[in-house]
Amino acid sequence: MDALQQLIAFALTEDIASGDITTDNLISPAVHGQGRIVAKEPMIIAGLDVARQVFEALESDIIWHPCCEDGDEIEAGTVVLEVKGTLRTLLKGERTALNFMQRLSGIATHVRQYVNALDNDKVRLVDTRKTTPGWRTLEKYAVRVGGAYNHRMGLYDGVLIKDNHIAVCGGIKATVAKARQKVSHLVKIEVEASSLAEVEEALETQADVIMLDNMDLEQIRAAVRKIDGRALVEVSGSVVRKDLNRLADTGIDIISSGALTHQARSVDLSMRITR
Amino acid sequence: MDALQQLIAFALTEDIASGDITTDNLISPAVHGQGRIVAKEPMIIAGLDVARQVFEALESDIIWHPCCEDGDEIEAGTVVLEVKGTLRTLLKGERTALNFMQRLSGIATHVRQYVNALDNDKVRLVDTRKTTPGWRTLEKYAVRVGGAYNHRMGLYDGVLIKDNHIAVCGGIKATVAKARQKVSHLVKIEVEASSLAEVEEALETQADVIMLDNMDLEQIRAAVRKIDGRALVEVSGSVVRKDLNRLADTGIDIISSGALTHQARSVDLSMRITR
Amino acid sequence: MDALQQLIAFALTEDIASGDITTDNLISPAVHGQGRIVAKEPMIIAGLDVARQVFEALESDIIWHPCCEDGDEIEAGTVVLEVKGTLRTLLKGERTALNFMQRLSGIATHVRQYVNALDNDKVRLVDTRKTTPGWRTLEKYAVRVGGAYNHRMGLYDGVLIKDNHIAVCGGIKATVAKARQKVSHLVKIEVEASSLAEVEEALETQADVIMLDNMDLEQIRAAVRKIDGRALVEVSGSVVRKDLNRLADTGIDIISSGALTHQARSVDLSMRITR
Amino acid sequence: MDALQQLIAFALTEDIASGDITTDNLISPAVHGQGRIVAKEPMIIAGLDVARQVFEALESDIIWHPCCEDGDEIEAGTVVLEVKGTLRTLLKGERTALNFMQRLSGIATHVRQYVNALDNDKVRLVDTRKTTPGWRTLEKYAVRVGGAYNHRMGLYDGVLIKDNHIAVCGGIKATVAKARQKVSHLVKIEVEASSLAEVEEALETQADVIMLDNMDLEQIRAAVRKIDGRALVEVSGSVVRKDLNRLADTGIDIISSGALTHQARSVDLSMRITR
Amino acid sequence: MDALQQLIAFALTEDIASGDITTDNLISPAVHGQGRIVAKEPMIIAGLDVARQVFEALESDIIWHPCCEDGDEIEAGTVVLEVKGTLRTLLKGERTALNFMQRLSGIATHVRQYVNALDNDKVRLVDTRKTTPGWRTLEKYAVRVGGAYNHRMGLYDGVLIKDNHIAVCGGIKATVAKARQKVSHLVKIEVEASSLAEVEEALETQADVIMLDNMDLEQIRAAVRKIDGRALVEVSGSVVRKDLNRLADTGIDIISSGALTHQARSVDLSMRITR
Amino acid sequence: MDALQQLIAFALTEDIASGDITTDNLISPAVHGQGRIVAKEPMIIAGLDVARQVFEALESDIIWHPCCEDGDEIEAGTVVLEVKGTLRTLLKGERTALNFMQRLSGIATHVRQYVNALDNDKVRLVDTRKTTPGWRTLEKYAVRVGGAYNHRMGLYDGVLIKDNHIAVCGGIKATVAKARQKVSHLVKIEVEASSLAEVEEALETQADVIMLDNMDLEQIRAAVRKIDGRALVEVSGSVVRKDLNRLADTGIDIISSGALTHQARSVDLSMRITR
Repeated sequence: MDALQQLIAFALTEDIASGDITTDNLISPAVHGQGRIVAKEPMIIAGLDVARQVFEALESDIIWHPCCEDGDEIEAGTVVLEVKGTLRTLLKGERTALNFMQRLSGIATHVRQYVNALDNDKVRLVDTRKTTPGWRTLEKYAVRVGGAYNHRMGLYDGVLIKDNHIAVCGGIKATVAKARQKVSHLVKIEVEASSLAEVEEALETQADVIMLDNMDLEQIRAAVRKIDGRALVEVSGSVVRKDLNRLADTGIDIISSGALTHQARSVDLSMRITR
Repeated sequence: MDALQQLIAFALTEDIASGDITTDNLISPAVHGQGRIVAKEPMIIAGLDVARQVFEALESDIIWHPCCEDGDEIEAGTVVLEVKGTLRTLLKGERTALNFMQRLSGIATHVRQYVNALDNDKVRLVDTRKTTPGWRTLEKYAVRVGGAYNHRMGLYDGVLIKDNHIAVCGGIKATVAKARQKVSHLVKIEVEASSLAEVEEALETQADVIMLDNMDLEQIRAAVRKIDGRALVEVSGSVVRKDLNRLADTGIDIISSGALTHQARSVDLSMRITR
Repeated sequence: MDALQQLIAFALTEDIASGDITTDNLISPAVHGQGRIVAKEPMIIAGLDVARQVFEALESDIIWHPCCEDGDEIEAGTVVLEVKGTLRTLLKGERTALNFMQRLSGIATHVRQYVNALDNDKVRLVDTRKTTPGWRTLEKYAVRVGGAYNHRMGLYDGVLIKDNHIAVCGGIKATVAKARQKVSHLVKIEVEASSLAEVEEALETQADVIMLDNMDLEQIRAAVRKIDGRALVEVSGSVVRKDLNRLADTGIDIISSGALTHQARSVDLSMRITR
Repeated sequence: MDALQQLIAFALTEDIASGDITTDNLISPAVHGQGRIVAKEPMIIAGLDVARQVFEALESDIIWHPCCEDGDEIEAGTVVLEVKGTLRTLLKGERTALNFMQRLSGIATHVRQYVNALDNDKVRLVDTRKTTPGWRTLEKYAVRVGGAYNHRMGLYDGVLIKDNHIAVCGGIKATVAKARQKVSHLVKIEVEASSLAEVEEALETQADVIMLDNMDLEQIRAAVRKIDGRALVEVSGSVVRKDLNRLADTGIDIISSGALTHQARSVDLSMRITR
Repeated sequence: MDALQQLIAFALTEDIASGDITTDNLISPAVHGQGRIVAKEPMIIAGLDVARQVFEALESDIIWHPCCEDGDEIEAGTVVLEVKGTLRTLLKGERTALNFMQRLSGIATHVRQYVNALDNDKVRLVDTRKTTPGWRTLEKYAVRVGGAYNHRMGLYDGVLIKDNHIAVCGGIKATVAKARQKVSHLVKIEVEASSLAEVEEALETQADVIMLDNMDLEQIRAAVRKIDGRALVEVSGSVVRKDLNRLADTGIDIISSGALTHQARSVDLSMRITR
Repeated sequence: MDALQQLIAFALTEDIASGDITTDNLISPAVHGQGRIVAKEPMIIAGLDVARQVFEALESDIIWHPCCEDGDEIEAGTVVLEVKGTLRTLLKGERTALNFMQRLSGIATHVRQYVNALDNDKVRLVDTRKTTPGWRTLEKYAVRVGGAYNHRMGLYDGVLIKDNHIAVCGGIKATVAKARQKVSHLVKIEVEASSLAEVEEALETQADVIMLDNMDLEQIRAAVRKIDGRALVEVSGSVVRKDLNRLADTGIDIISSGALTHQARSVDLSMRITR
């Protein structure tokens, strides 16, 4: 079982546990049916394959007909997929499958709004590690479906040096050198800088990416001029959609925003089950 | 390991995997520090104990000082807790602990707004099964912290008979009788009804709770009059805060709303780490 | 993997571990065979599907022919099922499959004797939580196969207030009110009462079920009269089969008995394997 | 986690799942108490340490005072152990701890009756693999506590050649030779024989143990004379207590009986909880 | 999942974790291909079935054509197997499948050299418990493929009494008697002896196997004469290939050597993938 | 439990399973002792902390005195560590702890020989993904202890584009562009090139690292000249120690070698246990 299958098993267990006492007691395992998942509002759909895996975890040979693809922009009323199997499977898997799709589509829809608002081809809008615990891979997938990009997946696949690391190691220079010495040559090193002086120091360490922390637009422009292509420039923080373009126009490379994931709300999908 | 400990282990694994390549390479395991989690906006705090378990999963003997309790309404700038341990533990656990607290406090805060908006002591506002997969128990806890109530935890601890069950079993009467026969005498039986005729039938089956489906206020009032205390009356659907009181004033007992959980957004908490 | 699959995997591991050193060393994986499970004494059969899952855990495409259904009363000598697969699978799964069926059928048979002894349609004979750890769901299933009913599945799906809870909360009234306030509206509340005075108090709290504790037949009759249909009445304790009807005739609704599960013995089934 | 800890975790999960809705809602985590487990009938006690691990799985620092040792013969009314911890832990762990002890003590008590009935120092009474799935190691431990011995633990730690193995391999001789060639020199080989001719053949293979299958006392005596100490002699089957000594007096070495485990019933223990 | 499936899942997780960021981003799941595993040096092949299970864990319906069998001696350039499936599966499973086969074939090849060097039919060359943690069953299998034999699988399936056990129990005699009393009659008892006096004592205890510890060839011959067939004789220690026959010719029964597993190196296999 | 704790639990289970039938039956849990792990040959020690975790998994409060540190070069006879605990824990954990340390120290020792042979400060010697399945993180740690560096940890934390990827995507240029577009800005992209023409193409894509495949020294020198610092240059393949310096002197940046891990053999450590 990979991590997604584990999460699905965990989710089905928390919902069903010792049994669905309504369905198991009322409906024979021999009765078959079909379900249609329908969008109740406009959205960017995401998570079709996760929903399939939910139903397959309950019954290995369901019949699965997706009617659109992850990333499609759909209208209210669109039939998203059809699934056939025993009525028991449909009734037991319905809520969990919808809960997955509603949140993933919610994130994709939310992210697409940011992406559409951003009028700048050269700037990459990326997510952060502010994801729902247990959902890191799924939510980062939904961000890509929405049209934005991923920052590192976790603490294991990218170096991001913050003030605490620098304080303990004794200065940016020593810190970056030590990190460079220890990590694989395939890993880039990013350093936080909160002043032009720190940007200067970071440049001397040949950091691959510099993250500008708590700077206003003026300072950001100055930092970009100083860096002058010698490192990628990232700006993070509480970015709101209307500020996106002013920020992007400063010449930076990357805007990272936790809001892409943690400010998204579920969108409304429902399932109609018939025999 | 109980289910929460499993979710925490799963969350730490998805973030740290083979190692925190920044912190493990830069900071010796001997360095100690302290962290303060601070509210960046007003909120109802929830999840203090989950955050404690996150840090304890990394280091069994951290020192833990909560400065408030789940359910407290706090202002921006409030110090929520202090934690002491190795700097490695603080840096590795920070994001996961915050991600748990931000979502749980977000739900508690969102729910409290509904609770405060409801001007009716006799009506119980309850959640649904529309929760983030993997988070059922946690999110239902946050709903209680926010001041609302829980519907059943899952498919295993309450009978909710819907149109599909009735269609297969051949009528409400047969369905409820069959369910009553099969389940424990400690379990109540709830039946969906979408017309006054169905309400009438449900009453004859001695259902414990009747859920009115897709009725307008006038129909709801008629149903309440007909039921006349012989069953609890629940209304579900897309309730918005401003409609709450008009709905409550119809005389129903329970308003259930998926929005309590799936429309909540994370609130902003941060952690300041020092040596 | 659901909980039953986990128990089956656990059981196969404890029996086979690093390998069946007799069969793996003597019999090629290419040899096929068939097995017949036969009853060696009269019994109520239970657990056919569990046995199937045991063999399928070893070989996904066995051929499975059940010759009767759970709940059937069968004579000694009856062929219960036939299974075809590799000889390795049959020899490795035999003991575990039989161990499951022998215990489940043993419980079903034992329970059926109680059910047959009970001459009262209005009284429900129910089990307790006195089940073999790890087997709760299975043993409660066997109880239903035997013809009796289930009490709550565990601590999570029904409230049962005992003297300790009442002592800590300060009286029955406060205790029931607090419980009612905290749990879902779909959960019933049962209260233990060991005297008529306590029955009176429980009635005032509008408990859904009252469990009469340690009362003689006379007291039980008095309690039933006092309760007069305002709550379900349960009697528990060391009920022996010959007392069942005298107890039932007091007018109570439910007799619960741990003996249904913990006093049952395995019945005798064997498997004949041929090539 | 070793296998016992896994079974305990599994058992607590099946009982508590998403929470003890009575105790968690009524009793604060700060309230402490003590419990006394008391024998309600005479028994051989077994499983004290398992009960301790149940409570420790809920609360790591409970205070534990056993008042007797596994294997002690105790009277009704004997206090078996005292445990102190939070009232929540005592109430949640009570049933699971008792369920473990009742079954293990039931087996030990049942086995002791057989052991006491056997009047022959030279014969070893042993169990079989007819144990409750999931409980192999525990039940075999209870057999030893009762005073009898263990046969192999599973299919992995002893060779037992039956008719099916012989039929496939082409005769006892070839079968035993093949097995001897394949398994470790530390593993003994046992062969089933159902006639004196088969006993003769088994002897020629230098089998370490010969199991006499379906023979009457006369045949058994003849087989023992023929074997004459060249192999251990085991007799299995549905041994009843009164036949034990006649069987033992035939000169065999080992009597194996599945009844030691699968015909045992739980004994009665209860827990008194006070603040 | 049995233990091998668990190890395979663990291995795939450590390699793939949150995703193969090269292949998942570049190659569509619809593209199919085939792979050929080829020997890059002469070897005894082992682990074909493990490799199959690696690919099947990624894609249940791969097409699998082994071109030789475990135990075959093959030349450099030999095609070992062909596998067809999606290109994603081939690229993701390649390294893990090869890593398993390279180590198992390495052990089989290394062991075969010892086996070929040993010119004595009566002596059994066996492995020890010096195996790679997590790989016990696999490496012991590779030893058998190479042509040698297994000692016990672990601490659970054979008694090996060493000086520490004897010191605590008070002498060999008491120790062996106690062990004999406690373990199944199917388990043999082996005792370490480091002098002729200890050999004498071990013989009196009727130990099944005597392990001669730290003796030179002369002492070993004397021990063999003294034992004279009353127990199996094992010699362990740092055996080098050229000493094997002189040791074997002393008349002992078993030579055990940890070097069979822990001194083996991986052999070279590669996989050619085409569309 | 993190991944290492899982591997340790897995390893202890494969060795101990249902119990250490020698030690559990002979030695009371109350007897304490101490163990000393001693080097039997010169080595670079690695894995001290893993051994500690093995013993702690058996007994949480052992007393642990390491006498050296991972990375130390020690002589035969050196006492590596002392551990105190119950004799049971020492005897049960001994083999597993040693098996871990012997392999990890074997790799560290083997790697150190390569590192010492390399006379070039500017070249980084790195490992590959040719590690023992289940041991990736541990073996890569031992490589660092030996003084060499790590390549990517797995398929998840670095992009390595090979001929198959290029063939499917249609040329290096399209492939690298697609990968760059999809992965995080913190991940570097490495491309395999097997001719100067391919090196040229790779340079145009602005690959971060170019891996020269199957080139002789002359071709490598030409490639280095062409690349001229615009990308890191890696050479892989079957590097033998005596070729290292000639290869390093071509001006490349990285030499990767699977032999660092898969050609290492265990070194000899033993444990002396006393009361």
